[in-house]
Amino acid sequence: MKVLRSPRTLISWRRRLDRDGITVGMVPTMGALHAGHRALIRKARLACDALVVSLFVNPKQFGPREDFARYPRSFTHDATMCRQEGVDLLYAPSLEAMYPAGHQTSVTVREVSARWEGAVRPHHFGGVVTVVAKLLSAARPDIAFFGQKDFQQTVVIKRLVTDLNLDVTVRVCPTVREADGLALSSRNIYLSPGERRVAPRLYAALQAGRAAMHRGMTSGAEVTRAMKTILAREPLVTVDYLAVCDPMTLEPLRVVRRSAVLLGAIRLGNVRLIDNILVGR
Amino acid sequence: MKVLRSPRTLISWRRRLDRDGITVGMVPTMGALHAGHRALIRKARLACDALVVSLFVNPKQFGPREDFARYPRSFTHDATMCRQEGVDLLYAPSLEAMYPAGHQTSVTVREVSARWEGAVRPHHFGGVVTVVAKLLSAARPDIAFFGQKDFQQTVVIKRLVTDLNLDVTVRVCPTVREADGLALSSRNIYLSPGERRVAPRLYAALQAGRAAMHRGMTSGAEVTRAMKTILAREPLVTVDYLAVCDPMTLEPLRVVRRSAVLLGAIRLGNVRLIDNILVGR
Repeated sequence: MKVLRSPRTLISWRRRLDRDGITVGMVPTMGALHAGHRALIRKARLACDALVVSLFVNPKQFGPREDFARYPRSFTHDATMCRQEGVDLLYAPSLEAMYPAGHQTSVTVREVSARWEGAVRPHHFGGVVTVVAKLLSAARPDIAFFGQKDFQQTVVIKRLVTDLNLDVTVRVCPTVREADGLALSSRNIYLSPGERRVAPRLYAALQAGRAAMHRGMTSGAEVTRAMKTILAREPLVTVDYLAVCDPMTLEPLRVVRRSAVLLGAIRLGNVRLIDNILVGR
Repeated sequence: MKVLRSPRTLISWRRRLDRDGITVGMVPTMGALHAGHRALIRKARLACDALVVSLFVNPKQFGPREDFARYPRSFTHDATMCRQEGVDLLYAPSLEAMYPAGHQTSVTVREVSARWEGAVRPHHFGGVVTVVAKLLSAARPDIAFFGQKDFQQTVVIKRLVTDLNLDVTVRVCPTVREADGLALSSRNIYLSPGERRVAPRLYAALQAGRAAMHRGMTSGAEVTRAMKTILAREPLVTVDYLAVCDPMTLEPLRVVRRSAVLLGAIRLGNVRLIDNILVGR
């Protein structure tokens, strides 16, 4: 497995593959790889000839009071997993390589970034979109793989790809969960034992919303109430939002006609957890 | 010569060239092609295997009181010139193909966009950078050709390409001028006969600045004064700016040490003209 540290070397690596008509897959990550990332990497490994995984904890997508400094970093562990899974190229740029002095370009996706995570974390998606644009432009994958856990992120990135005419297919892979339903996340290690016991209730709330829809409930407000009821019983939980939304625009649905995405975010102590379920009718 | 009208078809055309390892050149234009564009196209024709010229009058780079509606459009003439010059692909997307409903992504280059043209036309470079990012992402040229007449634009686009890790070389080609020194521009047709007689004085002012530097003048303020003197005698001319700047950052130079770019913009009636000279010491 090759390890590259700068955009220039990544661009050259990619350029050499053009000549052979090879399919390139990419899994962009912030490292601290867990079984959710492993599932993405395996999907990508099967679908593509050459596979790039990027590791970069992107400061621009963290707010000033967020956990950039303490975000888990585990390069040796991450490199081992990538080697085990047959990754061809590990792209792990330094901060200086990603944002050298004089860097002054940013990319913005407006409407679909505004609500939900964007409302709670105002600069988050601006940072995500800029770094993903840079990664996709340098690696030029045929397919880029993202986890459904960050549902709004996948919507924002699909919009970026469409609007900037990037020649890449965005593939969204199912959320990987613990046995009790908690969505895997690099931030789960922050949870105290007591918080960890309560954490799966977020998914339980989303499941309650889905069950209500399957029973025929069509009012967005009522489905939201069904979800809120589950979490109202949990004193450790602060709900940031629970919502029934259009999966393309992320606007809340007053009436659910066809498909919907149930979005949820809670706080448990200092830890924020997000999750979602896509429901087709 | 092929004519394509949508990003999807352009992306597919480009993708087929990957397999053969062909060099692709691109000349992005707003149409109304003149001898300056012809020179760019000829440079590109010689340097590349496959050549794309784009024609798109981009509404996002015009301000609300600017000349988008009356900007000259001449598709038949432009297509004829492209055919004569051996262009392989003319990319002329409609407004709807470039910005379909739901389009919500924009690209911003901050510092180098702020001054000069950016100060007079606040949304101009945001529009330029977004459309150029879209054109370069879809056509993926090896080399993109721009005219030096829009000097600040070339600096902004180089910054875009570096910051977003686009795999493209930006080549800047010399300004083509009328016999009396006026830089060619699609907007020159707006000039009345009286204004047209005075218009070359902008270039004369820049030449006076260069001559002063060649005589050994090193004070940015003094060189600027030498340029202003030339235009002060012209009652029809309003000076927007005349400046001696660092060619990379476009910041005004108090003392000229090595190279500088002399930037100028004037108004003649309702017409704005810009020009520049790069001076090496």
